[in-house]
Amino acid sequence: MKYSFKNDYSEMAQPSILSALTAVGTKQFEGYGLCSHCEEAAELIREKLKAPDADVHFISGGTLSNLTVISSALRPHEAVIAAETGHIFVHETGAIEATGHKVCTRVGYDGKLAVSDIKSAVEEHCDEHMVKPKLVYISHSTEGGTVYTKTELTAIFEICRQNGLLLYIDGARLAAAMEAADCDLEYSDIAKLSDAVFVGGTKNGALFGEAVVIFNDKLKQDFRFLMKQRGALLAKSAAMGVQFKTLFTDGLYESLARHSNQMAAYMANGIKKLGYDFLFPTQTNFVVPLLPSAVSAKLAELYDFHDWKRFDKDVAVRLVTSWATQQEVIDEFLSDLKKL
Amino acid sequence: MKYSFKNDYSEMAQPSILSALTAVGTKQFEGYGLCSHCEEAAELIREKLKAPDADVHFISGGTLSNLTVISSALRPHEAVIAAETGHIFVHETGAIEATGHKVCTRVGYDGKLAVSDIKSAVEEHCDEHMVKPKLVYISHSTEGGTVYTKTELTAIFEICRQNGLLLYIDGARLAAAMEAADCDLEYSDIAKLSDAVFVGGTKNGALFGEAVVIFNDKLKQDFRFLMKQRGALLAKSAAMGVQFKTLFTDGLYESLARHSNQMAAYMANGIKKLGYDFLFPTQTNFVVPLLPSAVSAKLAELYDFHDWKRFDKDVAVRLVTSWATQQEVIDEFLSDLKKL
Amino acid sequence: MKYSFKNDYSEMAQPSILSALTAVGTKQFEGYGLCSHCEEAAELIREKLKAPDADVHFISGGTLSNLTVISSALRPHEAVIAAETGHIFVHETGAIEATGHKVCTRVGYDGKLAVSDIKSAVEEHCDEHMVKPKLVYISHSTEGGTVYTKTELTAIFEICRQNGLLLYIDGARLAAAMEAADCDLEYSDIAKLSDAVFVGGTKNGALFGEAVVIFNDKLKQDFRFLMKQRGALLAKSAAMGVQFKTLFTDGLYESLARHSNQMAAYMANGIKKLGYDFLFPTQTNFVVPLLPSAVSAKLAELYDFHDWKRFDKDVAVRLVTSWATQQEVIDEFLSDLKKL
Amino acid sequence: MKYSFKNDYSEMAQPSILSALTAVGTKQFEGYGLCSHCEEAAELIREKLKAPDADVHFISGGTLSNLTVISSALRPHEAVIAAETGHIFVHETGAIEATGHKVCTRVGYDGKLAVSDIKSAVEEHCDEHMVKPKLVYISHSTEGGTVYTKTELTAIFEICRQNGLLLYIDGARLAAAMEAADCDLEYSDIAKLSDAVFVGGTKNGALFGEAVVIFNDKLKQDFRFLMKQRGALLAKSAAMGVQFKTLFTDGLYESLARHSNQMAAYMANGIKKLGYDFLFPTQTNFVVPLLPSAVSAKLAELYDFHDWKRFDKDVAVRLVTSWATQQEVIDEFLSDLKKL
Repeated sequence: MKYSFKNDYSEMAQPSILSALTAVGTKQFEGYGLCSHCEEAAELIREKLKAPDADVHFISGGTLSNLTVISSALRPHEAVIAAETGHIFVHETGAIEATGHKVCTRVGYDGKLAVSDIKSAVEEHCDEHMVKPKLVYISHSTEGGTVYTKTELTAIFEICRQNGLLLYIDGARLAAAMEAADCDLEYSDIAKLSDAVFVGGTKNGALFGEAVVIFNDKLKQDFRFLMKQRGALLAKSAAMGVQFKTLFTDGLYESLARHSNQMAAYMANGIKKLGYDFLFPTQTNFVVPLLPSAVSAKLAELYDFHDWKRFDKDVAVRLVTSWATQQEVIDEFLSDLKKL
Repeated sequence: MKYSFKNDYSEMAQPSILSALTAVGTKQFEGYGLCSHCEEAAELIREKLKAPDADVHFISGGTLSNLTVISSALRPHEAVIAAETGHIFVHETGAIEATGHKVCTRVGYDGKLAVSDIKSAVEEHCDEHMVKPKLVYISHSTEGGTVYTKTELTAIFEICRQNGLLLYIDGARLAAAMEAADCDLEYSDIAKLSDAVFVGGTKNGALFGEAVVIFNDKLKQDFRFLMKQRGALLAKSAAMGVQFKTLFTDGLYESLARHSNQMAAYMANGIKKLGYDFLFPTQTNFVVPLLPSAVSAKLAELYDFHDWKRFDKDVAVRLVTSWATQQEVIDEFLSDLKKL
Repeated sequence: MKYSFKNDYSEMAQPSILSALTAVGTKQFEGYGLCSHCEEAAELIREKLKAPDADVHFISGGTLSNLTVISSALRPHEAVIAAETGHIFVHETGAIEATGHKVCTRVGYDGKLAVSDIKSAVEEHCDEHMVKPKLVYISHSTEGGTVYTKTELTAIFEICRQNGLLLYIDGARLAAAMEAADCDLEYSDIAKLSDAVFVGGTKNGALFGEAVVIFNDKLKQDFRFLMKQRGALLAKSAAMGVQFKTLFTDGLYESLARHSNQMAAYMANGIKKLGYDFLFPTQTNFVVPLLPSAVSAKLAELYDFHDWKRFDKDVAVRLVTSWATQQEVIDEFLSDLKKL
Repeated sequence: MKYSFKNDYSEMAQPSILSALTAVGTKQFEGYGLCSHCEEAAELIREKLKAPDADVHFISGGTLSNLTVISSALRPHEAVIAAETGHIFVHETGAIEATGHKVCTRVGYDGKLAVSDIKSAVEEHCDEHMVKPKLVYISHSTEGGTVYTKTELTAIFEICRQNGLLLYIDGARLAAAMEAADCDLEYSDIAKLSDAVFVGGTKNGALFGEAVVIFNDKLKQDFRFLMKQRGALLAKSAAMGVQFKTLFTDGLYESLARHSNQMAAYMANGIKKLGYDFLFPTQTNFVVPLLPSAVSAKLAELYDFHDWKRFDKDVAVRLVTSWATQQEVIDEFLSDLKKL
């Protein structure tokens, strides 16, 4: 198997997470997220976000988190506003539509939504012959590896409040975003400037699991019913409780993302030195260089990665680093690229 | 925390499963169930069921498995036939209805459906003003801990075939059922006498995960699309692949269930000696004694368990053993019960 | 074609309704229920119900009315309580489930729900592993032709209010119910003792159409969006406006039902004189005599009707009269029955 | 009320349709589309389309027809390809999504889809992380009043067949399309070059109702179940049977559309003479002139119409004629426009 830069979930789990799971032994716990493991993990997350009243729920994956939160928040005729690159619009096989809701898209820029996108989407949907936008979905970091600044997120939250819209953040890569140099948001800002977020585990070293954090009281009501109905209430939720307890102890969650981002920066720097340009600058753990098609093809014989966008002569390829990426592998990669 | 006989998922995971997960280290793998771990696990399951052409998919939990399989198999107007005690009818918060389908129930007996139940359900739904039954759902072992015999399952499969119905088995506790003395079915019979089954991991020692096994070619088509849409396609499915590989190596899957069943038999025998009767005989890892209400109430101060059914003076309580239950705990339980 | 007592929608439309439609000529009107025809009809209905703040919407049929109202009122995990004989449970091909919601049933009596049924349904659904009952569905008159008294409806509304449940009345045959001697409810009571009702047109002389009347402010919000989404917002809603304007002018709505009920009473009296007994007494426009199977079979050669319930030797057959039923036809029917 | 050019459903019904309904009197008929009226109407439609094996069903409106056909044809992960201007994407309040399916759009041209649009949509959706396009939706005439030629429809049908896609035609304005000078299709071509169509009544003189015609055997199966489930099986379907029988007798259906198209051509010609240009040429009963914003504003004080698209200085307004539009009204309109 070739070394893979396809994504940040190609390695099992950060060792201390598996140790923590093993350390539980056969000690019994309550099912369905009502155990002390989950409660302690929830408390650590609430502290991190400085959101003492937030509800925290653990769900096995991102698509399941997204569809459960969104379908819980909307009446049948209400719709989501998302960027055209949004994960829920493109890569979740119509999961939101399968719960009955339309996703209204805007082109956005670099994977991000702008205030003007939200405004125009609201204005366009003006009567009962069209769906009613009710929830704005953004990813942070985005599907392009970009991040929102505090100014941007504040403006988005305000336009949402002015228009009766909920703001939901897909934080599959929240850690990477928050560790980005270009991101001046603090975790507590996330709590102040959104209605709900999912704090990603799978893409930041966990074996599996995401933490859905709900700030808005209206969204809290009966959420466990919705989880159960969508198959998102795991019997052994304790397995996620233990993992998130570990991640949010001693700064592990941040340090894993920091490493991942650093590896991406290191790689980007090396690629730049080889004279290549980028589709957009590396802000988190995504490196998106523009390579001549022939170079990209040869590189694909040595490494696994996804194409982001194909142009006439060039390809923007997407190279993703993870908590487990080692500098030596990148050195080798750069050396291989140099030869091409 | 009191010792719990509430269920068979109160302990984290059988140790060799966690060791196997740990042993993977940072070795990379493909995402979404396309890795060698999943492929090897699938092959072991196919061998066990003597079903070389079966499709095997790994899903994080039982409700998610049930709703994904059932909604994948049905057109909008098609319905499920289930026992009134069926997990999908009672305890999944309307998960099947949330995908658009009605569950038509029959009273059944001891948690089981009879051929006559299926017949009458089909006959009752006679025109386009009613839903059209298309899939029969049974649990094996059932929600009451009972099991189907080969004669019974054969008869059910035949009535299904005669009426164009699919037969789907909820095998959350398949291992317990197959190890039951009263069950003369072999694993290969499951493959021959049903269209799909989920082979339960969560309730038999796994950290999480179920293996959905599809025998019927028509149900195989595009199943991964359905999984993704329902949030059932886990990025790190490899974590389930490793677990099921472990469970289906050296007979671990069977031996865990055997232990669990033996502990239940031991407990049932002890309770019988104390002079109590049972609502129905213990076939798997459920013990359902009839206790005077006062005795049950005092017992509940010492142990956690669920009531199964309340009568005038007595309560049928449900005591569940697991792969991790130790004989000493049962001895202590029996001694405590004796004192009451 | 044999004369039919199968239902009360076997004849096209009461003549003055078609005259009123014809009288409009090519005068233009607004689409989608925003015309003066609909507004005037709505006002007449509000006056009749003494509900000046009610919202009135016109929908082409009963199933479409039921599914639109119910799916508009519920969050995904919320369910309906209905009698086992309820139209939505039996004869709408899973229409409610197709919008994602479970219908929880009770046996009821004579097609009616009792307060104790509602209580037990609420108590049974006690946690997030089960759906949450949120709306009670009753039919008035019921699928068996029976009616609620003011005492009964008051008690049902109170138990609903005490448990946070909505009360929705399927009034496909509201006129027949309100004209029943056994029904001491006034139209204004319907407005006081329920959250929404549909005032049936199809089964009381209209060409097509039902008037959904919403009393509860929370249910009013965005209802037109829901109508459009379900295909229930007709472009030429004016056609229903004109019809309901006609029905609610000069007491036509009541007089049509009165005639229908009288014909049923006349028929029931005649059948009684022939020595036959009834499954339950005739309260509205349904006559349900118990006939020996052989008599029923011969009668079926002469007339069209549905069997209600088959017993060992007898059949309870359902004979339905309508606004258009003529006394001579019943005389002939009775004479035919006498010969058998 | 100002004279309205907003749409072609502002007048009740062509007189002979109401006469036919009235002529039925109190003659009884079977419910739910099983009457002789529906059967005769269906036969006339089959003859018109030269499709003796087609199934014909009558549904009260267009959105309800679209959602019933589309949700009946698709598995949960399958999606629709439509033009961005497609009625189902824009103006049905997410009706298709409410049945669980995504609508994938292409920009199209003049409201029409091109073969290249379909190709690119299929190619883009390449794996199980995305929905699977399965049905192509086109309108004929389109939401812009444009029509497909035989060459175009043949090419679309062929690309569909090559890619396992179904082709469904929204024929809300089928009559207008077929009478267009630019449309060289015959009714029999519709049957040969699509899997299903709805033959619109509401927008061509009927009181209400559309005829869904299914050519593909696979789509025929159990369609009445789907109709009932969606609330689309009207008790008095006979009312639609009578109307379509009238429309498809003595060429009424075509002549109504011909008149409507002629009025539009007459109006377009008059506007052209006044020196105005058009956004696109008038092919059916839509006239879309580009008017200076000030002119459009003053015109709106005299007449009702919709804006189609706003430009910097000009507005493209949409003027719709109907079967009932009189030449004198257009003359007056042109005279009014001239004065502005």
